[in-house]
Amino acid sequence: MRTRITNVLLTPGATGEPHIPLIPDAEVHISDNRIVYAGPAGTAPVFENADAIGGEGCLCMPGLVNLHTHTPMVFLRGVGADLALDDWLHKAIFPLEKQWTEELIRCATDLGCMEMLRFGTTAFNDMYFYTNAIAETVRDNGMRALLGHGIVDFDESCADMAEGVAMAEKWNHACDDRIRFSLAPHSEGATTPALLRKVAQTAKAMGIPIHTHVSETDFDLQGCLKRRGMTPPAYLEAMGVLDSPVIAAHCVWFNDEDIALFQKHGATVAHNPISNLKLASGVAPVTRMLAAGCRVALGTDGVASNNSLNLWEELKLMPLLQKGVTLDPTVVSPAQALAAATVVGARAMGYDDLGLLREGYLADLILVDTRNAHMTPALDVEANLIYSAQGSDVRLTMVNGKVLYRDGRFATLNRDELLRRAEDGAQGMRRRLAQV
Amino acid sequence: MRTRITNVLLTPGATGEPHIPLIPDAEVHISDNRIVYAGPAGTAPVFENADAIGGEGCLCMPGLVNLHTHTPMVFLRGVGADLALDDWLHKAIFPLEKQWTEELIRCATDLGCMEMLRFGTTAFNDMYFYTNAIAETVRDNGMRALLGHGIVDFDESCADMAEGVAMAEKWNHACDDRIRFSLAPHSEGATTPALLRKVAQTAKAMGIPIHTHVSETDFDLQGCLKRRGMTPPAYLEAMGVLDSPVIAAHCVWFNDEDIALFQKHGATVAHNPISNLKLASGVAPVTRMLAAGCRVALGTDGVASNNSLNLWEELKLMPLLQKGVTLDPTVVSPAQALAAATVVGARAMGYDDLGLLREGYLADLILVDTRNAHMTPALDVEANLIYSAQGSDVRLTMVNGKVLYRDGRFATLNRDELLRRAEDGAQGMRRRLAQV
Repeated sequence: MRTRITNVLLTPGATGEPHIPLIPDAEVHISDNRIVYAGPAGTAPVFENADAIGGEGCLCMPGLVNLHTHTPMVFLRGVGADLALDDWLHKAIFPLEKQWTEELIRCATDLGCMEMLRFGTTAFNDMYFYTNAIAETVRDNGMRALLGHGIVDFDESCADMAEGVAMAEKWNHACDDRIRFSLAPHSEGATTPALLRKVAQTAKAMGIPIHTHVSETDFDLQGCLKRRGMTPPAYLEAMGVLDSPVIAAHCVWFNDEDIALFQKHGATVAHNPISNLKLASGVAPVTRMLAAGCRVALGTDGVASNNSLNLWEELKLMPLLQKGVTLDPTVVSPAQALAAATVVGARAMGYDDLGLLREGYLADLILVDTRNAHMTPALDVEANLIYSAQGSDVRLTMVNGKVLYRDGRFATLNRDELLRRAEDGAQGMRRRLAQV
Repeated sequence: MRTRITNVLLTPGATGEPHIPLIPDAEVHISDNRIVYAGPAGTAPVFENADAIGGEGCLCMPGLVNLHTHTPMVFLRGVGADLALDDWLHKAIFPLEKQWTEELIRCATDLGCMEMLRFGTTAFNDMYFYTNAIAETVRDNGMRALLGHGIVDFDESCADMAEGVAMAEKWNHACDDRIRFSLAPHSEGATTPALLRKVAQTAKAMGIPIHTHVSETDFDLQGCLKRRGMTPPAYLEAMGVLDSPVIAAHCVWFNDEDIALFQKHGATVAHNPISNLKLASGVAPVTRMLAAGCRVALGTDGVASNNSLNLWEELKLMPLLQKGVTLDPTVVSPAQALAAATVVGARAMGYDDLGLLREGYLADLILVDTRNAHMTPALDVEANLIYSAQGSDVRLTMVNGKVLYRDGRFATLNRDELLRRAEDGAQGMRRRLAQV
């Protein structure tokens, strides 16, 4: 399959070549699932027998990468708003989560993927339960995902882990390598040292990443200090976890030693600024992380604490929040924010050929319409992209060379039927809970 | 002119009647510029000879009120991103602002109004220059606005003030009362005591509000303490300014005494969380303000420090930011945020019959589509509205009984032609500046 996208605008951030200025009249050529050309129309090679997509007035850029989410939690959207964390989890979230069935998980996963595709997210890193059903759903809806089966282990039984490993063996690199698997121990607080050591050894042997929650709240940090006598990053290093590629969600309560440790091991922080504000966890020291050369990418977290999967909101909030809390308006550039929403997350998911529009890279890309009031004038296109663009400006979303969303239509999802099933499914979970 | 909107969802926040639950099948009747009915379809009176608008799947709610902006600054979108405040003003913003002409101001005002209408803002409170041209533009494009001619006065000449008073006399209550005028001394730091006293006396005599910037930065606060020996609110009280209705933009550096003073005088804080973060001014103590019974409404500030006029972003960020900085997830409810974006701002603009869907109120309202992935499921409709809705979900915007935006079309603005003129105009300003 060959696709030729014409008349688009390419930014230095999209190509990852800061020395190449804006290209106002560019073409992008896709053959099967790879980009074979991205550059000026004038120097584009002949590319025949290709489907043509006219991109007039649109920016073409890499698809967004949501580096931390729990996709099926879309069914819990708005549940327990404004409760304190403990009440929120134990009185609102956990009881509803007991109502899941495989069928509901599939529906919720599709609903979350529909929202992500609509807003230009092409790949996501997930941790949840019923992970086999999630993988089957992603297989069918066409998104790219790094999936992890959440491992919680207070008794050293490691029961969840065996399941997670079996799923990883089954699914890693499946579906033309669209699906990959991680091992996903929930957090220091919800696992034993024996489990973490075993996860570290297994992930290393299998060559797969580890996805976990780290220092989300001060409560997490203080608990770890008390239980392990060291901060969560130091403990993860001691357990051997940092010897594998690690995606660490949150990292709000990091000191400079924690940051240095992550930088040394090449671990990636999945920064979820909206969720961290909403649950009153705090603000991660992203400015210091970036200055130390630590990898920072963006995530939405689950919808229950956001309440959306529109990564454009994180893309704007990341620089805003850092400027505001450091009282320094010069920190976090549009280029840094854009990288955090694309290529840094792609690399953390284990893809070295994803997240930029370059020859040989995987064809995960989006078209963003700029012909509207809120993107006019275009005096600084990359600033407009970070601070003015809306998720709804995405007109086309392509994953692995296939157009999955275009102008209101989804290629693999029946929008109206899915919305109806999702509403019924989520309302049903709540009704059943009320009857318990 | 009569309009009958059918099949809409009404929330307690929209009607301002917390004791009335969600009404899933409601009608809203508009006669001329007033709401004559908003409630269940079943009990709606007969309303014949009306234009019918089907609102299936939509929430109907009051239009958003942007309580602090400098609308023509849309032409400076993205200018000087990431500069320190002083450089941003003196090297990026002020030089460009010397390039304004009346014609460019009209074009920029229309561009800003188009963006606001698209995202459901029906009324705004503005402070800028060329204010007569702004008023003429708003007269023609149909929005509701409280306009103030920015008064800067370092030499007690009060020249700007005479102009501002003349405009207020000409325009206040003009255009079927869509346009009102304030007096708009820029800030304590940019005005003399003599000017502020004169503004206070004149505003009181004319019965119009005062719009000014207050305690935006720590620099502002420290300067005022040094110059006047008291905080900006105490100084405004001493000058008599707080004896009139006051709209005070920012109020970031407020202590509890400042808050109490504002509460006592009924002054309204125009909270601009995005601008305050972007310019690294800080985070206003909104939680303490609300707890003290102080009026807090939302604004975008000028686009140069935002960079958009989409008030939905402030609507989500206001509660998020307060939860995050107070480390308390229970503060600022969806209802408080919604009020800050609608009725509180409407009252501050001097309209006692605006900002709710009630019989006798002015017909400024919007329809928000909920039939999409990011608003599904609807387990908590008001939480969805604050945390999940997008500005782009607005399908219809009505001001003073007239539909000004519906499904991509603007009644009073030629979209494509305006975008082209705006791009040319803003680029021209920058070119001329480069040639100076």
